Amino acid sequence: MKANNESKLRIIPLGGLEQIGMNITAFEYEDSIVVVDCGIAFPDDDMLGIDLVIPDITYLRDNIDKVKGFVITHGHEDHIGALPYVLKEVNVPVYATKLTVGLIENKLKEHNLLRTTKRKTIKHGQSINLGRFRIEFIKTNHSIQDASALAIYSPAGTIIHTGDFKVDYTPVFGDAIDLQRFAEIGKKGVLALMCDSTNAERKGFTMSERTVGKTFDNIFSDHTNSRLIIATFASNVDRVQQIINSAYKFGRKVVVEGRSMVNVITTAAELGYLNIPDKTLIDIDQMKNYPDEQMVLVTTGSQGESMAALSRMAANIHKKVSIKPGDTIVFSSNPIPGNEKAVSKVINELSAKGADVIFQDVHVSGHACQEEIKLIYSLVKPKYAIPVHGEYRHLKAQSKLALELGIPKENIFILRSGEVLELNQEGAQQNGKVQTGAIMVDGLGVGDVGNIVLRDRQHLSEDGIIIVVLTLERRGNQLLSGPDIVSRGFVYVRESEDLMGEARVVVEDALDECLSHKVSDWGKIKNVIKDSLGGFVWKRTQRRPMILPIIMEA
Amino acid sequence: MKANNESKLRIIPLGGLEQIGMNITAFEYEDSIVVVDCGIAFPDDDMLGIDLVIPDITYLRDNIDKVKGFVITHGHEDHIGALPYVLKEVNVPVYATKLTVGLIENKLKEHNLLRTTKRKTIKHGQSINLGRFRIEFIKTNHSIQDASALAIYSPAGTIIHTGDFKVDYTPVFGDAIDLQRFAEIGKKGVLALMCDSTNAERKGFTMSERTVGKTFDNIFSDHTNSRLIIATFASNVDRVQQIINSAYKFGRKVVVEGRSMVNVITTAAELGYLNIPDKTLIDIDQMKNYPDEQMVLVTTGSQGESMAALSRMAANIHKKVSIKPGDTIVFSSNPIPGNEKAVSKVINELSAKGADVIFQDVHVSGHACQEEIKLIYSLVKPKYAIPVHGEYRHLKAQSKLALELGIPKENIFILRSGEVLELNQEGAQQNGKVQTGAIMVDGLGVGDVGNIVLRDRQHLSEDGIIIVVLTLERRGNQLLSGPDIVSRGFVYVRESEDLMGEARVVVEDALDECLSHKVSDWGKIKNVIKDSLGGFVWKRTQRRPMILPIIMEA
Repeated sequence: MKANNESKLRIIPLGGLEQIGMNITAFEYEDSIVVVDCGIAFPDDDMLGIDLVIPDITYLRDNIDKVKGFVITHGHEDHIGALPYVLKEVNVPVYATKLTVGLIENKLKEHNLLRTTKRKTIKHGQSINLGRFRIEFIKTNHSIQDASALAIYSPAGTIIHTGDFKVDYTPVFGDAIDLQRFAEIGKKGVLALMCDSTNAERKGFTMSERTVGKTFDNIFSDHTNSRLIIATFASNVDRVQQIINSAYKFGRKVVVEGRSMVNVITTAAELGYLNIPDKTLIDIDQMKNYPDEQMVLVTTGSQGESMAALSRMAANIHKKVSIKPGDTIVFSSNPIPGNEKAVSKVINELSAKGADVIFQDVHVSGHACQEEIKLIYSLVKPKYAIPVHGEYRHLKAQSKLALELGIPKENIFILRSGEVLELNQEGAQQNGKVQTGAIMVDGLGVGDVGNIVLRDRQHLSEDGIIIVVLTLERRGNQLLSGPDIVSRGFVYVRESEDLMGEARVVVEDALDECLSHKVSDWGKIKNVIKDSLGGFVWKRTQRRPMILPIIMEA
Repeated sequence: MKANNESKLRIIPLGGLEQIGMNITAFEYEDSIVVVDCGIAFPDDDMLGIDLVIPDITYLRDNIDKVKGFVITHGHEDHIGALPYVLKEVNVPVYATKLTVGLIENKLKEHNLLRTTKRKTIKHGQSINLGRFRIEFIKTNHSIQDASALAIYSPAGTIIHTGDFKVDYTPVFGDAIDLQRFAEIGKKGVLALMCDSTNAERKGFTMSERTVGKTFDNIFSDHTNSRLIIATFASNVDRVQQIINSAYKFGRKVVVEGRSMVNVITTAAELGYLNIPDKTLIDIDQMKNYPDEQMVLVTTGSQGESMAALSRMAANIHKKVSIKPGDTIVFSSNPIPGNEKAVSKVINELSAKGADVIFQDVHVSGHACQEEIKLIYSLVKPKYAIPVHGEYRHLKAQSKLALELGIPKENIFILRSGEVLELNQEGAQQNGKVQTGAIMVDGLGVGDVGNIVLRDRQHLSEDGIIIVVLTLERRGNQLLSGPDIVSRGFVYVRESEDLMGEARVVVEDALDECLSHKVSDWGKIKNVIKDSLGGFVWKRTQRRPMILPIIMEA
């Protein structure tokens, strides 16, 4: 690959900055675009009723002829979840390691895209050529197996993108992160490092996944008389492996419960990422054949998600498992920020049923802490630092580390989604913006819920709605029927008959005033009704329900 | 006080169990009831639009002749906030220490109850006689000054209620907790201990408030060139005192910002709980006369509350303060569970404006950890343990500690709100229940929003509403106008004209069917419209908006 001295590499994050989620970054050099990851975000608290959020890929659609493929670092939802939506518009090949491809295929199947989507499995150490780029997959460790960092070779220079990673010297499955390769590429010269910022505020090192296995052994040995139920992340196959290992050691059978976990575990087992000793795994319906002290259930719901298996058990609405006094329940997870109250609710429900709940120190993170981030910087020695995968506070924390490690301030770029960074050996600068955004998915609708709809939902959720219906004569201005007043989500009507009666009088008076002044603009009449009724309701209740006048003509 | 051997002391928690908040407990002996605390709870996430929650005090109203007074342990909202609402129905005297009375009076003023409410200031060590009870106020430490534990002497025996407390050997203001008095009363024999459970899951000791002062000194000395903005809880007067101390030491002026903090600080200063060196405190409008490095702002908003001062500064909508690069902002607080995301949002906004944000290790809790709880049990040596002030998990954690300390299992009572515990020297048992509950306050409305209204708000918030309006002839069954279809919070209509057009056809067909079959029951017609339109919308969008048919007659 020969560099055109005029040409620059353009790095265009289409998501994943400002938040943990919706990771997708385009790398553009002349006529070639390669896209790294294609994830969803989970809706913010103010996105009422929204199921999930996908990135706006207008930029890719507008440059569809350049797009050579998606390169996926690992199989978490915030890195693969938007693929089925995006591939419908930008149908290019997908490249990833084996387990990642397996998990992507599960999604393609659901969306009927298996036949039309090209995908290719890449091994760690392998490279692929995509237009003007060569991409090398480098082994890393993370809370899901088969995670990769990427070396992105372009004529303008080499970029290292870590993906989500930690340094685990003693992983449960497979090899440790390929630090030698990071060093080797670094030695040859790296233009920029794009490094995971999730834990950049945390000092020290993230512990090895294997330490959780020892904790499990202790828990199994301390609770030989009770049924064990262990909740963890559906995609953490190594965690499940370690539970299976402890179960085997202590003579327990394992049941896996929760749709998403069963899916991942099935795929991982089929592809050889999980070693299950014979007769250890049993079906949930066989549970009744074994005494409690010979059982361990591995389940979803570690984040307090209301529809997940553990939450249903806690709320007594799980079809096959009810919590009994004497059960020991382990949260092998920490609450993701925002889920604390939901998790606490489930812990309370489980405790109140007499279960013993263990929720401290049975988890390690999948992301690098400060010392690991420093290690990667020191091996790669990039000219430019571009912290990725985090909220602003996390990107900022990493940029402080980069500064400490000697990267000059002007060589550190905290980008926002859509901001284009142009760089080559001569320099780097932010240059322009492309369209980005969060497209909301609600049921089958993709993008049909926008800010106006959300604002209405917010308004409705706080104070409800009052609907005023009346029929006016087609031409003249005579009231033919109504006004009828109906409310929902405002007050409990039986307790507020007076209020609603008075409200009707207020509307009638306002209407009389309009009609006697021969106001014929129905928009005006509606506004008068809104103002007078709104004023009355505020004075009486200090609430501001949505007021919706509907005038029919007859 | 002579015990009637037949009589029992009845302990009736009317709130405060199952949650941290809404603390109120009735103690009843024969013809006397004394109520400890009268707090609000903040609304749960599913209480959409609700401002605050107060306890159902039906039991007190039904026994109003017995109620001798409210005894208040300290001035936090979850212990005094419901007083103005409850006193309107149960107007009895209120007893508390000086600062607590001062804060209660602020509330009474707002609600125009100052003239009609009797209140009496009690000193630590003093007792009051209320009917068959004698109540002694015992000095404790907490994150607000003048906190008290209560010794409740009844003919059936002595109860110690700790209130909210920690053991601070080196408090910022006033004395350490009166451990000698706990021991002395314990030595004489205590029937039951009702002890704060908030931190019962946490090992060790809570650090002294004074340690935060040292941290402030370090922060002030490390940031001599930048403006300091420190957010903390409005009611933590000792925290503000320590900021003032550091400011004085380092030659800075102090501005207090945020309505609730100004209120508390003003009251505390008036009553002598705050020592402000001359000319240290300045008005926010004088800020412009001082360079940044001579200023420290103390502000509300440490929980990310969207309307609080710090959040408004972060969002650029504060009238008098904007965040600048170089500002150092300190969160002297930990996020209360549920507020993590809101706090993170503010941290991100502040960081993005170039401010340096410090949020780790600048706070200590106001509640006792495990070793302090054990200390109190060991001094008091109660016969019965009744953990209070916490969610079930916290009460359970304390009951484990009590068990470890030798209290027999059958002498530990985890009560739920409304459950009556009857006890005397002969024994203790749960006996019956009284009515309790959470009454929601929304604007001026107290209790007019119930579960149906909340369920409607929830439904509206998720998928919005579709309103179908039509006019039928009064007698016959002829359609005079409509059906008109209006939606809010469902889809962005301009993008969904087809869908709404088809929806209209679906309703028309359903209506034709009804009218041609001469269905005259309007309830039935409404149901047919709901079902057919609901089915159509689900099939097309997989959403379930509220469907509200309104039939008018003409």
